Amino acid sequence: MDIVSQNRSFGGIQTVYRHPSNTCGCEMTFAAYLPPQAADGPVPVLWYLSGLSGTPEAAVEAGGFQKHAAEHGLAVVFPDTSPRGDTVADDADADLGQGAGFYLNATRDPWRTHYRMYDYILNELRDLVLDHLPVEDRHGITGHAMGGHGALTMALRNSEMFSSLSAFAPIANPTCSEWGRKQLSAYLGDDETAWSEHDSTLLLDDLGWKTDILVDQGAEDQYLDLLRPEAFATMMAKRRQPGTFRVQKGYDHSLRFVSSFARDHVVWHAERLH
Amino acid sequence: MDIVSQNRSFGGIQTVYRHPSNTCGCEMTFAAYLPPQAADGPVPVLWYLSGLSGTPEAAVEAGGFQKHAAEHGLAVVFPDTSPRGDTVADDADADLGQGAGFYLNATRDPWRTHYRMYDYILNELRDLVLDHLPVEDRHGITGHAMGGHGALTMALRNSEMFSSLSAFAPIANPTCSEWGRKQLSAYLGDDETAWSEHDSTLLLDDLGWKTDILVDQGAEDQYLDLLRPEAFATMMAKRRQPGTFRVQKGYDHSLRFVSSFARDHVVWHAERLH
Repeated sequence: MDIVSQNRSFGGIQTVYRHPSNTCGCEMTFAAYLPPQAADGPVPVLWYLSGLSGTPEAAVEAGGFQKHAAEHGLAVVFPDTSPRGDTVADDADADLGQGAGFYLNATRDPWRTHYRMYDYILNELRDLVLDHLPVEDRHGITGHAMGGHGALTMALRNSEMFSSLSAFAPIANPTCSEWGRKQLSAYLGDDETAWSEHDSTLLLDDLGWKTDILVDQGAEDQYLDLLRPEAFATMMAKRRQPGTFRVQKGYDHSLRFVSSFARDHVVWHAERLH
Repeated sequence: MDIVSQNRSFGGIQTVYRHPSNTCGCEMTFAAYLPPQAADGPVPVLWYLSGLSGTPEAAVEAGGFQKHAAEHGLAVVFPDTSPRGDTVADDADADLGQGAGFYLNATRDPWRTHYRMYDYILNELRDLVLDHLPVEDRHGITGHAMGGHGALTMALRNSEMFSSLSAFAPIANPTCSEWGRKQLSAYLGDDETAWSEHDSTLLLDDLGWKTDILVDQGAEDQYLDLLRPEAFATMMAKRRQPGTFRVQKGYDHSLRFVSSFARDHVVWHAERLH
């Protein structure tokens, strides 16, 4: 792993790494924050998955997680949102291709060569983090928008790996939204039976979640109709899923919304990971 | 108003009052907690409505609101759950009659003579409290089970009176539950069009709520099928109603559930009333 940048932050260390990825077949970037407590022994990991067009650098700058992670003794890992580079397929459409990996393994050309974010995060990057950073093999996961989709779908399908789960304004029902149908069709093909593993509302119905889930949603989110958080909330109610669903009055879709509630989510994960 | 009992409590004063009620045509009991701050000037009022068979005395003893109300400078008023006395109609069934007023004005015999809890609380008791206690004309409302039903329906229908709203395990959709259909039929008659004003899920659909709503529900509540909190949660999602719906893992229907989350609700109201 090469270090792209490294800074002291709230008594801990914020680093951006670059490494060759076998899974994605290209160089990948991610960021990791280590809190002060990591100097004394391994700490649990909170994964933060970014939204469409997000980068690890942007999440580090704008999310505001470091202060709270330092206070509560969590490492935070910020993966990228897709493979990137000149040799990696892309689309002029900002919602498809680079920056829009949707946290799945593509099975269709031209995407299947590099777009394997699901395996990359859950296996390769997880092993890399466990091997190289002073962290416990104990994980929580959250994310924003497309990253909220990633967090919910990855955790629901891998409940043995994750001990805590939350999301900010997730793309919650992509099989019924234009933020989803376009990408699932491109990456997985038109057979919709393959899509259900990437729809957190359907997964919650099918699998439930072992503990409780926190979801925050801005009431003034510009993309409410595309995110469909109410489908997930309705499924939580139908399943009587332990958890908290909050509609936050006045908040939009931006990272200002995420940073405003970052503390609540870090506390949520810290209480369940420690 | 006669004072039945009065005790110093967390630096404030807890009193049980008895007074003749014109609205209910009988003597009525209620309790009121005044926090230490009330000695320096009027404080806002949090109304706590009790559940089936509850009394003001039981809510005062078991709810655990005083400590938090003292900390956050709120008065708490605990009305009774029905008119009471030898001259007041009753039913051997514990879910109908005395202790089970359902916070409505009955229109059918033998109930309509005394069972007018809706008008009693919103008009007569409110005026009595404003005239006799050092409180502001600024109100929040919460309640447990049948009292959660009362809090939600009274606030939704009287949004000009209440500035904050929450509920614990509310009877949330009584027109579709045996905790509701029996009482609504007895008190209001069999024409179900008159029932919808007493169903918070239907009222939320019709009216919405001006700010945000907090609802807590125990996941191990013995009466989940009768309470139907998921109908209200689904309507919150459908309406994109600002608010927080929490399903609390491991908690049952008892007042232990209420007291465990009393602090959160007092803070919720205090933040919106001050």
